Order: sequence, then C-alpha cells, then structure tokens
Amino acid sequence: MTWNTTNLDELPVYEKLVKLARNPFDLAAPGAISPERINGYKASAVGFDLLFATQRLDDAVINGLQQLADQSDAVEQFLEMKRGAVMNRIDGHASEERQVLHTACRDIFNESHPFHAGATGQAKQQLEKLNVFLAELVKGELVNEQGNNFTDYVNIGIGGSDLGPRAIYHALSAYSLKKRRVHFISNVDPDDAAAVLEKLDLSRTLVGVVSKSGSTLETLTNEEIVRAAYAEAGLNPKKHFVAITGQASPMDNPERYLRSFYMFDYIGGRYSATSMVGAVMLGFALGYDAFIEILRGANDMDMAAEERNIRRNPALLLALLGIWNHNFLGHETLAILPYSQALLRFPAHLQQCDMESNGKSVTRMGEKVSGFTGPIVWGEPGTNGQHAFYQLLHQGTTVVPAEFIGFRHSQYEDDLLLKGTTSQDKLVANLLAQSLALATGKKNDNPNRSFSGNRPNTLLLSDKLTPYTMGALLALYEAKIAFQGFIWNINSFDQEGVQLGKVLANRFLAHLDVLRQAGDIDREQHPESWAMLEAAGFVKDN
Amino acid sequence: MTWNTTNLDELPVYEKLVKLARNPFDLAAPGAISPERINGYKASAVGFDLLFATQRLDDAVINGLQQLADQSDAVEQFLEMKRGAVMNRIDGHASEERQVLHTACRDIFNESHPFHAGATGQAKQQLEKLNVFLAELVKGELVNEQGNNFTDYVNIGIGGSDLGPRAIYHALSAYSLKKRRVHFISNVDPDDAAAVLEKLDLSRTLVGVVSKSGSTLETLTNEEIVRAAYAEAGLNPKKHFVAITGQASPMDNPERYLRSFYMFDYIGGRYSATSMVGAVMLGFALGYDAFIEILRGANDMDMAAEERNIRRNPALLLALLGIWNHNFLGHETLAILPYSQALLRFPAHLQQCDMESNGKSVTRMGEKVSGFTGPIVWGEPGTNGQHAFYQLLHQGTTVVPAEFIGFRHSQYEDDLLLKGTTSQDKLVANLLAQSLALATGKKNDNPNRSFSGNRPNTLLLSDKLTPYTMGALLALYEAKIAFQGFIWNINSFDQEGVQLGKVLANRFLAHLDVLRQAGDIDREQHPESWAMLEAAGFVKDN
Repeated sequence: MTWNTTNLDELPVYEKLVKLARNPFDLAAPGAISPERINGYKASAVGFDLLFATQRLDDAVINGLQQLADQSDAVEQFLEMKRGAVMNRIDGHASEERQVLHTACRDIFNESHPFHAGATGQAKQQLEKLNVFLAELVKGELVNEQGNNFTDYVNIGIGGSDLGPRAIYHALSAYSLKKRRVHFISNVDPDDAAAVLEKLDLSRTLVGVVSKSGSTLETLTNEEIVRAAYAEAGLNPKKHFVAITGQASPMDNPERYLRSFYMFDYIGGRYSATSMVGAVMLGFALGYDAFIEILRGANDMDMAAEERNIRRNPALLLALLGIWNHNFLGHETLAILPYSQALLRFPAHLQQCDMESNGKSVTRMGEKVSGFTGPIVWGEPGTNGQHAFYQLLHQGTTVVPAEFIGFRHSQYEDDLLLKGTTSQDKLVANLLAQSLALATGKKNDNPNRSFSGNRPNTLLLSDKLTPYTMGALLALYEAKIAFQGFIWNINSFDQEGVQLGKVLANRFLAHLDVLRQAGDIDREQHPESWAMLEAAGFVKDN
Repeated sequence: MTWNTTNLDELPVYEKLVKLARNPFDLAAPGAISPERINGYKASAVGFDLLFATQRLDDAVINGLQQLADQSDAVEQFLEMKRGAVMNRIDGHASEERQVLHTACRDIFNESHPFHAGATGQAKQQLEKLNVFLAELVKGELVNEQGNNFTDYVNIGIGGSDLGPRAIYHALSAYSLKKRRVHFISNVDPDDAAAVLEKLDLSRTLVGVVSKSGSTLETLTNEEIVRAAYAEAGLNPKKHFVAITGQASPMDNPERYLRSFYMFDYIGGRYSATSMVGAVMLGFALGYDAFIEILRGANDMDMAAEERNIRRNPALLLALLGIWNHNFLGHETLAILPYSQALLRFPAHLQQCDMESNGKSVTRMGEKVSGFTGPIVWGEPGTNGQHAFYQLLHQGTTVVPAEFIGFRHSQYEDDLLLKGTTSQDKLVANLLAQSLALATGKKNDNPNRSFSGNRPNTLLLSDKLTPYTMGALLALYEAKIAFQGFIWNINSFDQEGVQLGKVLANRFLAHLDVLRQAGDIDREQHPESWAMLEAAGFVKDN
C-alpha cells in the first residue's frame, strides 16, 4: 500500500506514551483544573469548541499525541482517502477492495478542484435530480392520485440506511417543513411495520426504500409488507415508492418506482447519511436548501480535519484522546452524552459508525492486532442520563470516558425564566457541572458520599444545533473514527463480522421452513441448531 | 444487620470459582454445544425460558454458582426485602434508611397473606382510586371543558418517573385503547417540551406530573412550561393536570391538580414502574385491566424469584451468570439485545435500573468494595443492532456478554410469508443464529473472515410480549439486579453518586444568574467554574 501501515505499538512514540500513562495527570488534586488549563486545553474549528482540560493528560502527553498523529501519517491517510485511494482492503487477502469516498458527497462547494472529481460529479448529478423531485413536490406538480400533496414519508432501511438518517431527522425536526412528517421502518420484526402502518394515511405517503445492493433481507421484506398494505388500500405503489439504490441493482426499476436515486459502492452504509441515503428523506422533511446546509457543515469539517496541528483539529484530537484513554489508560468503553434532546438517536448512529468501523481484530496487513481497537460506544441525552446511569459514571468500579456535546442556544428558543434562569441555562449548567464533577470528584467523610474523580471527559460545544452544525458534527465523528482506524492500522470500512450470523440465520430459516411444511426433521446434519430451535420452544408448535 | 453481609471474595466458594475461571468452558471447540448441553442448560419460570448453553461454564461452575447463591443467602435477602427490612442503608454512616418495597405494589393477588400488609394495603388504595378515575374517563363522566373525551396524555417526569413507564408504554402500545396516545417530556432541555407541545391539542390532553418529592428540577420546570402553554391557550390547568407524588409533598395540592395519586418513600424511582408512577399513564393508555395484568406478571415472577434452586429461578441464574462474566471472567459490560422492536426503550430502562442500583464502590458496611460491581449496560433491538454494532460483538478486541430477549409470536400477528418464511420466522432465526454464532465462532483461512467465538450470551424466550409477560420481564430484571447487589454486598437502593453533579450545577446556575443580571463577576471564589463558563463561550454572550 502507498500509505503508512505501521502498527500503533511499532511507532517510535508508543513506548513514551506507555511510560507517561503509568502516572497520568491527577484531575482530582487540589487546583489541578486551573483556569489556565481550562483556557489552554481547547481546540476549535467550524464553530465547535473542544474543551479537554478534564482529560488525564498534560503537555507532555499532548506532545506525544501530536507525534502519534505525525508518525502514523493520520492526516496524510485522510487526504489519501479523500483522493480516492482503495483503502477498504486487507493486504494479501480477499477483501472488498473499494474506495472510501463519502467525503466526495459534500465536496461540492469548490467548483474547480474537488478531491475526487468523478465521485463529486456523481453526487452533484444525484443532487440535481433530487432538487427537481423536491421542487415538484413543493410546486404541487407531483401529487397523489387524488391530486393531494404528500404529507408523510416512510423510510424503509436498516443499519446505515436507517440510523444516521434517522438521527439527523430527529436532530433537525425543529426545522421541518410544515405538514411534512417522516416515519421509519427498519426491523424485520413484523411489529415494526405494523405499528407504523397503523397510523398512516397511505394515500398521502411517499415510501423511500433504501438498499445499495437491492437485496437487504429486512428492507425487502418490509417493502413487501408495505406494498401489500398499498394493494389492500387499492393504491398503486408505483405512484408512491421511491428507490434509493445502486445503479442497475434489482431495485433500479422504473416499472416499480416513481423515481430512483443512486448510491455508489465507494460509500459505506454507515458513512452514507450525506449521500442520497439521507438526502431524499431529509430533503422531503427539511427542504433542499436545508439539506445543502448539512453538506456545507460536513464539508467545512472535512476541510478542518486536514489540519496537522491537533490543537486546531477537533476530529483528530478527539481520535487521539480516545486512543489515550483506550490503549494507554485501559478503558474499554466510551459514553456519548449529548445535552440536547434532539440528539436522542445520535449515540445509536455512532454505535454503528464507530463500532462497525473499528470493532476489528485484524490489521490492514492481515495480522492479528496486538492491542485494543474500537471501544464500546453508548449513551443517552443529558440531563436524562443523570437520573439514570450517571451513578455508575461517578461512583462505579469501572471508569467510563465520556464525550459531552452541548449547545449554547436551544432550537425552538421557546423557554421560560424560572427562579432566575431559563431551562437552557439549567441544561448548560448541568452539562458543565457533570464534566467538572467527573474530573475533580470530592472527598467526603462518609465513604458512600465520596467521589474519586479522575473520570476523563471532553466537552464539545457549539452555538446551536442547525442543519449546518449537524453536518459538521456528523463529519467530525466520521473523521474521528477514520483517524482512529488509521492509527490502529485496521480497515475501518468493511464489516466481515456480520457474515457468520447471516449464514447461521439462513440455516435456522431453512429449519423453520421444514417445520412449516411439516417436513421430516433431519437432525443429523445440524444437531445443534435443531436442538436450539427445540429448546427455544419452536418445534413443539408445529 | 440481620442479613448476610459477607463480601463476595470472603464467601467459601469464591476461590473455587476463581480457579474454575482460569480455564473456562471452550464454546468454540468442535461439538462443544451439543444438543444435550442445549437441552440441559435451561431454566424456566412464569412462561420464560432462559437458555444458557452459550455461556462459558460447565456443571462444576453451575454448582459453584448455586453455592454462591446459597452462601450469600441471596434468596433469604430477597425475602427480607419483600418483608420490609430496611435494606436501603449503609452500616455506620448516614444513609437513606428506607425499606425497599416495590414488590408490595404487585403483591395484591394473595388476599390473606401479602408479604407486607401495610405497603400492599396502600398500593390497593391507590389502585382503587385509579380504577375510579379511569372508569370516569371511559364512561365520559370526566371530560374536558368542552365536554370532549381526553385523547392524549403527557407524562412529565425524569429518571424512574420516565424510563421504566416509557419503556413499558412502547412495549405495549400494540394494546393501546383506541384514540389514546401518550407523550413524554423529561429533559430540562426546553426543546423537549417544545417539540411535544407543538403537536398537541391541549384541550383534549391530560398531563401527569410525576415527582415523589415534588421538587425535581427538570420536572417542575417542564410542568411550568406546560402550564404556561395551557394559560396561553386559555385553558385551566387544574382541569387537566394530575399529580403523582408523595403524600403531603408540595405537589399534593387539590387547588392545582384534578387528582393526586401517591407514591411512597419505600419505593425507589427506578423500581417504581408498577406503582402509581407507571399506573396512571399506563392505565390511561391500556385500561385498568391491562395494568393489573402487568402487576400479575410481575407478582408471579417475584414469587418465582423465591426459588432456591438456580435452575428453576431465571432471575437468580441471570444474576449469577452476570457475576461469573463480570467478576470471574473480567468483562465490564453487558449488552441487552431484545429481538422485539416494541422493547426499543427497555435497554434504557435497564441502564437506569441496573447502573444506578449497582454502580457502587462501597459495601453495605461502608468499606471500599474490593472487586467489580455493576456492569455498563447498553443495547438496541435486533435485528437492527446486527447492522450496527454486532461487528464489534463478533470480531472486536473486547468481549461483550449479551442477554438476548425474544418472543415466539409477534404482537400484531400481521405478517407476510415471503420466500417460505414469515418476518417473525426471520426475526427468530436471526436471534438464535446470533446466539450460536457468538458462542461457536468459525475459523477461516482469511484472518479477516475468522471468528474466535467464546462470546458468552443467554437467550431469554417467551411466547409473546403482552401486559402479563412485560410485567414478568420487568420483575425478572428487578430481581436480577437486587440479587447481584446482595451478592456484591452493596446497597442497590440509594444513588449518592448523583449529588456532586447537583451541587456543581447549582454553582453554574448561580454564575449564569449573575451574568443575566449583568452583575459583577467575582472569579475569586470559584475560578475553575468561571473559567469553564468562559472557555465554553457563555461569558462573552452577556
């Protein structure tokens, strides 16, 4: 490969960081978190401020992390990725062998020199098609069979075709166009579709079916369930269904869909929210211009991620802080704690984007990794989480590094002054207080009321959650995850770990098919799966 | 104290288990998961089957875990709890000093001998009051100022007054009464209330405000926001607001509320879903009889949890399997993976119930615990999670024990046969396949397509998610968490860890109040918090 594939523990700075980690900065010492430290440990870009005085590090560690970024060529690899290098591969073994070009979807603002003209050109073509489609909806040129506007949109997709777009929809629903609502069907659980269908007027609903291959089990199954509901309602699905799929996939079929929008094999599902996968649904909900603002924010953050100085590159710094906490201080998990109810589903998106990217055990050279790779990512919005799991964050036997996300202003700006402060004040006060409390702790004579502190965390702050800042936040985490993968020397862009479950699911499905047909049960070939089906109570039913 | 307070590592069986853990059962060995093992490693009660052949243990470990249960008097402690012992305490230190009687809420079916007649009597009084209230709604005796039925209900509460009830509402919304919808406001983020209020017809909405003390910051703030919206709409809140609170709390005020329902200090917030905290909202949504079915399921599981043989007590067995994985095999986290979209928010409830209960570092004797206590609990429904974070579960560098939950039948029973199987078949096939795949793994010449297996998990199965089974599932996990706390010798019923954050939040609020009044900023007393406010960009705004 043309890029740096040195393993983390073979980089020159590795041993230095190991030594520094033996005696990490004590956040709980009196005066440890001084005003100078707070003001000095801050990295800003694209309207986001990353405050990291509450991490267990000092200048020596920060210098070491800068060297780690330099020695691993993290930024150079990011640039290679943007230029279209085939980074989704494992050297010497069969692998996906694909480019990684989600950044090209938003590299549309520099007319003269996009990083990858081909992919950005394709993105622009799709955007133009979307612009036409959305304008027809607005102008009332595209209406249902009764001549009425479409008011609802059902997104049928799973994984990357669901989590990222859904997280962004919830994040920005304060900006929804009037009388536009979106619903989501993802799970193969038939109750998921049933609960959504129950409350819809199908005649005024568009259905977006999202599958790159056109063959995702859950998505095709749910599409058939919804098509059956249309048929039952005497409506023609062709007038309602839109395909978001790979060009020439089985779903790219004008006989069955009102329109087709294309996704490309150089964009992985979990990085596809800024492609047509998110665009069609978000364009319906928010309008075309708001979607372009999401792209603008993402593109600005993609550019900020090219900065080599980690104090001016929040995405890279966040990646390095994670590696410090995971690989050097030994923490296995990462809590994402947005102080914004609108970001309710953002942790679920990051669970996919991060854990599917970096939950790997093999390097890009096909060798077993020697240390820790991707963390377990989880989280819920604050202040809700404070009344739930923060007890463990403060006093549990496991240290959980946390990334707080907050905004200075609310979205609706519909607030109430109560006892001298607004709800937004109360939200922000709690956000800052938690960051400080986890770091400093507080001694108490009552051991049950004592706090050890030294629970590392960062604060990521911006003015307001808008389409632009949402785009930037999304891209910040995408870049963070890619940087970590580069430094761990793993392929963050495949997902071979999902294959074995698929194979075994097909075996169980074949068993269930046999049972349904009252066929002879031949236990000999697969005794375990038959035994499991029986123990789980499925055989006796038939 | 009158009950066993021996620490885990001082129990006779502890060293034996430590030795057994050095060489745990190899699930990935050929033929390791035999049909005999699958059929033999199963514990059933109250319509739930717990399959645990995919855990890393053999009969010697199971015997050791039975001894662990016996030597810690786990079941005796559970019985003490049900009888009203003051188990929420720390010996020798100031503590809450309360009974723990959530089980009394559902111990209403045995007329003659409830465990704690006083608490069960109070529960019955409240239920009777609720029955009257709900009947008035059904009969149209209790209507709004225009004589219309109430169609919507807003639950204002946070933590235990939100997560458990909300999880159950989502779990059972398939059984909702016609034209009854429930909405939730929890977060102090003003956008939470704004987003809910935007879509409501307040005139036909009841508002339930839930706070035991009548003084929860978030809840009172949100109540005022909603009251202001009523005032703005020219409606009288007194005709719409219901209080769920402690008797004689500031909220127990007939001048301000249509009705008051009481909660009691012997029921902790995270265990309160079967008290009036869940009852009023769930009764509105599902009807009185369905709520009683939830109680019946919970009570049946509470009784099953009295069984000393761990092979007949799924709650106790699940607790012990957790301790085996956490304390002996060294895993820090626990994934809760329901294969039921309706259980979407059940993991969030368990995050509170488990992590706030057992995220502790001090024993009931006020000593520092020597080992691991509560795990980090997280999860999302399958099959969605398969397309998100399962990559890490299968191939990551961290082993995540998993608890799968599934049902043989869907709720709506509205399904489609596609390629020989229904969606429910596909759901269940995936559930069983994941359990087996995580355990056995599969070798492959391509290292990136190789699965190490030995990722421990259990399968918890029942026929169908109904009010009864939901109640049983809730109680199963409540009992599991209590058993673990007994064995760890910690107080699972307080939450002192949330106090420091509250203190610091008040400091930041005072700072923000100073800024709002353009007062003099006196940095000297609290230089860190002022610096943080400034670094976070709040001072310059004023």
